[in-house]
Amino acid sequence: MAADGLTVAQLVAAIERSTAGRLVATISGDADRRIASVAPLETADGTQLGFLANPRYRPVALTSRAGAIVLDAASAAALFPSGRGEGTTIVCDAPYAWFALAAQQLTPAPTFEPWRAESARIAPTATVDASARIDELAVIEAGARIGPRVWIGAGCYVGADAAVGEATRLHPGARLLAGCVIGARGIVHAGAVIGADGFGFAPLDGRWIKIPQTGRVLIGDDVEVGANTTIDRGTMGDTVVEDGVKMDNQIQIGHNCRIGAHTVIAGCVGIAGSATIGRGCQLGGAAMILGHLSIADGTIISSGTLVSRTIGEAGFYTGFFPLMKNREWERNAATLRHLDELRERIRRLEARLQGTNDA
Amino acid sequence: MAADGLTVAQLVAAIERSTAGRLVATISGDADRRIASVAPLETADGTQLGFLANPRYRPVALTSRAGAIVLDAASAAALFPSGRGEGTTIVCDAPYAWFALAAQQLTPAPTFEPWRAESARIAPTATVDASARIDELAVIEAGARIGPRVWIGAGCYVGADAAVGEATRLHPGARLLAGCVIGARGIVHAGAVIGADGFGFAPLDGRWIKIPQTGRVLIGDDVEVGANTTIDRGTMGDTVVEDGVKMDNQIQIGHNCRIGAHTVIAGCVGIAGSATIGRGCQLGGAAMILGHLSIADGTIISSGTLVSRTIGEAGFYTGFFPLMKNREWERNAATLRHLDELRERIRRLEARLQGTNDA
Amino acid sequence: MAADGLTVAQLVAAIERSTAGRLVATISGDADRRIASVAPLETADGTQLGFLANPRYRPVALTSRAGAIVLDAASAAALFPSGRGEGTTIVCDAPYAWFALAAQQLTPAPTFEPWRAESARIAPTATVDASARIDELAVIEAGARIGPRVWIGAGCYVGADAAVGEATRLHPGARLLAGCVIGARGIVHAGAVIGADGFGFAPLDGRWIKIPQTGRVLIGDDVEVGANTTIDRGTMGDTVVEDGVKMDNQIQIGHNCRIGAHTVIAGCVGIAGSATIGRGCQLGGAAMILGHLSIADGTIISSGTLVSRTIGEAGFYTGFFPLMKNREWERNAATLRHLDELRERIRRLEARLQGTNDA
Repeated sequence: MAADGLTVAQLVAAIERSTAGRLVATISGDADRRIASVAPLETADGTQLGFLANPRYRPVALTSRAGAIVLDAASAAALFPSGRGEGTTIVCDAPYAWFALAAQQLTPAPTFEPWRAESARIAPTATVDASARIDELAVIEAGARIGPRVWIGAGCYVGADAAVGEATRLHPGARLLAGCVIGARGIVHAGAVIGADGFGFAPLDGRWIKIPQTGRVLIGDDVEVGANTTIDRGTMGDTVVEDGVKMDNQIQIGHNCRIGAHTVIAGCVGIAGSATIGRGCQLGGAAMILGHLSIADGTIISSGTLVSRTIGEAGFYTGFFPLMKNREWERNAATLRHLDELRERIRRLEARLQGTNDA
Repeated sequence: MAADGLTVAQLVAAIERSTAGRLVATISGDADRRIASVAPLETADGTQLGFLANPRYRPVALTSRAGAIVLDAASAAALFPSGRGEGTTIVCDAPYAWFALAAQQLTPAPTFEPWRAESARIAPTATVDASARIDELAVIEAGARIGPRVWIGAGCYVGADAAVGEATRLHPGARLLAGCVIGARGIVHAGAVIGADGFGFAPLDGRWIKIPQTGRVLIGDDVEVGANTTIDRGTMGDTVVEDGVKMDNQIQIGHNCRIGAHTVIAGCVGIAGSATIGRGCQLGGAAMILGHLSIADGTIISSGTLVSRTIGEAGFYTGFFPLMKNREWERNAATLRHLDELRERIRRLEARLQGTNDA
Repeated sequence: MAADGLTVAQLVAAIERSTAGRLVATISGDADRRIASVAPLETADGTQLGFLANPRYRPVALTSRAGAIVLDAASAAALFPSGRGEGTTIVCDAPYAWFALAAQQLTPAPTFEPWRAESARIAPTATVDASARIDELAVIEAGARIGPRVWIGAGCYVGADAAVGEATRLHPGARLLAGCVIGARGIVHAGAVIGADGFGFAPLDGRWIKIPQTGRVLIGDDVEVGANTTIDRGTMGDTVVEDGVKMDNQIQIGHNCRIGAHTVIAGCVGIAGSATIGRGCQLGGAAMILGHLSIADGTIISSGTLVSRTIGEAGFYTGFFPLMKNREWERNAATLRHLDELRERIRRLEARLQGTNDA
């Protein structure tokens, strides 16, 4: 990218090329306008690109001073039937995706020279591709394999016989423990722990006997693991995260879970052992998924919702206590404790009223 | 502080001085009694200071063997109208705050000599104040700025162009990533991650396109960040934590949040992206705040409460399911699934009864 | 263990010996069958051991190809009255515990030679037993004591005057801060932080005054601490985790808590300051325990449940909002906001109907 950005025409061409023709866009107005960065519509200036994906924000688009706005044909027709004056519009059927790709074009991933910090501790039997970068004080244990263009951040740990696929990046202090595998183009954020022991104990006479956790964590390609997120190794067999899964921070994935491809998981979610999450699911923040159940492909779970049973049918599921003023909550919660009695009282009323009416 | 503590009179004078006269206290009993440390009223001995802030604990104060008790005038008058015998009382309008400051006087912050551990990796272009201390195996990247009397703990990471203000302490393994800033007198506990990528993706054909996260985290003065807490950088623009915010452990703050000054956030709280929390708020443990909303200054949120909408009016808000014996919960939860039908049945009963009465 | 496993007879003898005769088992079928590893009944082959503990899975046991199955006498009599054909059965009164011990026999804990990595930073005044192993880039501060056969993983931190008991293992990047103590045979997983400051502040004029956190964390024997879990030091006095407690990942334990012996705590649980959890309790995932309360020995708390008051009587307690389709939740949640009014309407109906009937 040139230091001063790209023209709208250059962006349109680059994105059409990078998506193999999937995202084609039409320019209205100045195609040679130079875009330096992306910004929200509210604050964007003449050198910035904004996007409109939700019709709710049309009024903001109307007054935005963004140099260019990417939006769909319906919004463009509604808002700018005769152009945006000095501003440029970019019409595309997936404006938010186009915006994301434009942001990538304008913010290229950091490039680096191959490097092995002198302070890093790399076992002699580890295999590190010549194009990889190993930062200060990283530790690579025996038998580990580090692929091409991998970037291992400062203070990271890659355990014995673990493997990191091509162009994956581990941010500072991420840990991939013994035998665990992550595929290509992954991103593991700082402090994440992949491959700690699953939580498995058998009770005996009031004590707990540890079940050795001998499985691995196997992570596919294009997966993102958030900061301080933890993914446990399988007890017997492996914990599996399929391609394209995106996980936010502070998430816990239990032993022997399987997370289906292209599922997104927001922050603070917990998934107990042996749960199977389908493909293309969306789990809201702080959702809690119990163990030994499964969730159908494409299911959406609201934030703060506890999933206590298998969800066999895709859909949008919710279960959190609604917010109230505390004094209202006090009253409603007190009644909730006796909800079953209320139902019974209604039943008796119905029976008596039936009797009354019959009389 | 002398090894054997301070007299009550010395404490009173020191706190009056350190608060510029805001906290003035009156001594009853032996002002020369020597106090070595602070303790709960129940266990305090004659060399210790206890406090009474909640009238509920007056009976405990009455029988406490603490060398000195700090309390307000009303409690003092009620409990000790003719003195505490051998014990000393310290009367003050903010006894808990006075106690906290006394504890600080009796437990001075650790002092240290300037130091740069030989094992630390400090980039040549980083600026480290001569009075700072950099512990074993810390990493300071290019362009980072470390202020006066800063203490960077063992194994910490300060990214490129990040900045740490005067007298701030990073505990072992805390990470402040590239470009992020923390002000003066801050405390960042072990394992905290400041500046990981925000969670932003645009969907396209069932896959997720990453939106580059180019903002920073900007943290004001006198902020505390708990162990293993994570604060994400902004997508475009910055995530902001204002002065005096106190955050406990295991908290997640999403991209582009703004946390108002002097707000306290208890452990395990999650705040989704682009939420704006007012000044002086109190968020209870494991509260979950959804994104793109705002919370008024001074709002109190109970533990375990999900905030799903903007709170425009300060108040005390709650929303968690009350605790029950499991068999009661089973019944009540089953009824709750049909609450809407119950309402309808009541409506019909009312209509029929209206008819009955009219008849 | 021989590379090719142990015979059933060898396993039975070894477990009887290791439990001092507590777990005695009876073999039916081939006692010389060689078992290489453990596996779920569904996938086990002729070299593997499976277990049946829950009668619900009897059909799976019936068709399992596991070389050996451990189960109780009732299940054995019901399923295999005339033997398992080529398969072996092991009958025992605690089959899951026997299975766990067999897995331990077949997966011995990793052994190691004493070692001190050259890159580790060990203070001259630290005491490290000659049989301990200190991995790459670990830091052991002044006055710390490392017991016999302890394994300190890569990048771990043991603070000043902290102590690690015999045969305890700290996985990579675990941190035991100054003055904290863990007993024998403990396991601390990657990224755990033991001994960060408790969260204690006194308010004054809209600001927060830090209360110095001068206590320690004292952890007994045979305790497991999950990845990225945090346990805060006491404010005054100590935070105590008794023997045999098992904690999963992402848990937060506040200052001055006491966790009773042999309690198990699932992932994402938060326990606020000064809570006392009894012995032998089971806290489900993401349960939230408020501070300054106590929970009776042997109490079971469901996942996702907030405990807002002392539980004086052991039992099984629950409190989470049941999962619903979102559109049903919308209706039910709207009604829940007015639950108190519903109760009042029922009361009025009852009163009116009473009048009607009396008429």
